[in-house]
Amino acid sequence: MKTYLICSGGLDSVTLAYRLAHKQSLKGIISFDYGQRHKKELVFAQKCASKLGVDYYPIDISAIGKNLSGSSLTDNIAVPDGYYSEDNMKSTVVPNRNAVFLSIAFAIAAAKHGDSVAIAVHGGDHFIYADCRADFIDTFNKMEQLSLEGQCKLLTPYLDQDKSEIVKDGVKYNVPFGDTWSCYKGGKHHCGRCGTCVERREAFAIAGVEDPTIYDDNSFWIEAVNRNKGKKLG
Amino acid sequence: MKTYLICSGGLDSVTLAYRLAHKQSLKGIISFDYGQRHKKELVFAQKCASKLGVDYYPIDISAIGKNLSGSSLTDNIAVPDGYYSEDNMKSTVVPNRNAVFLSIAFAIAAAKHGDSVAIAVHGGDHFIYADCRADFIDTFNKMEQLSLEGQCKLLTPYLDQDKSEIVKDGVKYNVPFGDTWSCYKGGKHHCGRCGTCVERREAFAIAGVEDPTIYDDNSFWIEAVNRNKGKKLG
Repeated sequence: MKTYLICSGGLDSVTLAYRLAHKQSLKGIISFDYGQRHKKELVFAQKCASKLGVDYYPIDISAIGKNLSGSSLTDNIAVPDGYYSEDNMKSTVVPNRNAVFLSIAFAIAAAKHGDSVAIAVHGGDHFIYADCRADFIDTFNKMEQLSLEGQCKLLTPYLDQDKSEIVKDGVKYNVPFGDTWSCYKGGKHHCGRCGTCVERREAFAIAGVEDPTIYDDNSFWIEAVNRNKGKKLG
Repeated sequence: MKTYLICSGGLDSVTLAYRLAHKQSLKGIISFDYGQRHKKELVFAQKCASKLGVDYYPIDISAIGKNLSGSSLTDNIAVPDGYYSEDNMKSTVVPNRNAVFLSIAFAIAAAKHGDSVAIAVHGGDHFIYADCRADFIDTFNKMEQLSLEGQCKLLTPYLDQDKSEIVKDGVKYNVPFGDTWSCYKGGKHHCGRCGTCVERREAFAIAGVEDPTIYDDNSFWIEAVNRNKGKKLG
């Protein structure tokens, strides 16, 4: 396979990069600058491409970002603290983001004669992000089969797994977890309070894997998880 | 309806702009700079937005264009002369272009609280462009219903019509045809020899509408059409 991976520099997509590289199918890593405040993540995507010795394609679509609005990831709206299932997390939705990322990645993969595009959407994403759900992924793939007449298919190996299983997979492929960035706030260290920090910290705990990440707030995640246990199990 | 239209400045999309404006549903016009050599078309898209008094969103995705290759519309490859059904026209395909344009347009429309995105794909496009066919359009729309949870739908009123019917529609809505640009070569005047010039000239002839366009070569289109009559009807 000749796979082009969408990689944010986060734990999930960097782990997927190592998994694909292990299978010798990773050809290139594609990252997007869409005006996100945690642009810092892109440094980690580039580092990943460099460590794995594959081409890196940083794509600047900040011109589009300027025409979008309403998300706390791109606008001057505070990034909410808490667990992903909480209502306030909806402000982290960037509408149609994966459709935009994926369609550009398919265009690049097609131009480079690749046969697949991979993205690290996972089970835990589905709750609030419509464009991470299985029916979206399946229909997007069908659309691309028509657009590119079968040249390229979509790979989502983590679609039905949760983040703790990705951590376990990362251990298998020797992922340097310290070289991944999740925090939406993009500060010096991971904040430990935003949705993705809480989810990251919890995933390491569930997986029973040591978390090398430095968090500004080391205990908030337990409160957040406990507060939302009912919702999570319900 | 609150519709955002993808408009290249060409005959089809400018006509669709006037049609939507007549129905008072046009909210904005979105154009793309993807590194095409006939960037000149964008001047006509902007003029259209200005005449109709709607917002204009010129989106620079030339950073993506640099990573694509192999199309005569973006690369240093000669634009072929002739009729669209001829084999050499395949070099004008930019892989996945409509998927990229549409997904960005849906992102912008969603951010602006629009309820629809329109694109002027038409019957004559289907021959060589997979991403103009009905099955692609239908599946793309289904994908967006999932991605945006039903907020925005895709409108393609010209999908089953040929370009001569669009010319007739343009007459109905008083489209200033002289303020539209088709030619892939992007010279001072329309060349009259490339696929889109030949198709444009033929459409006016079939519609029986006077063509105000200045072509460098005024007679080539008849040769091209005659040479390909068998293929066209076959």
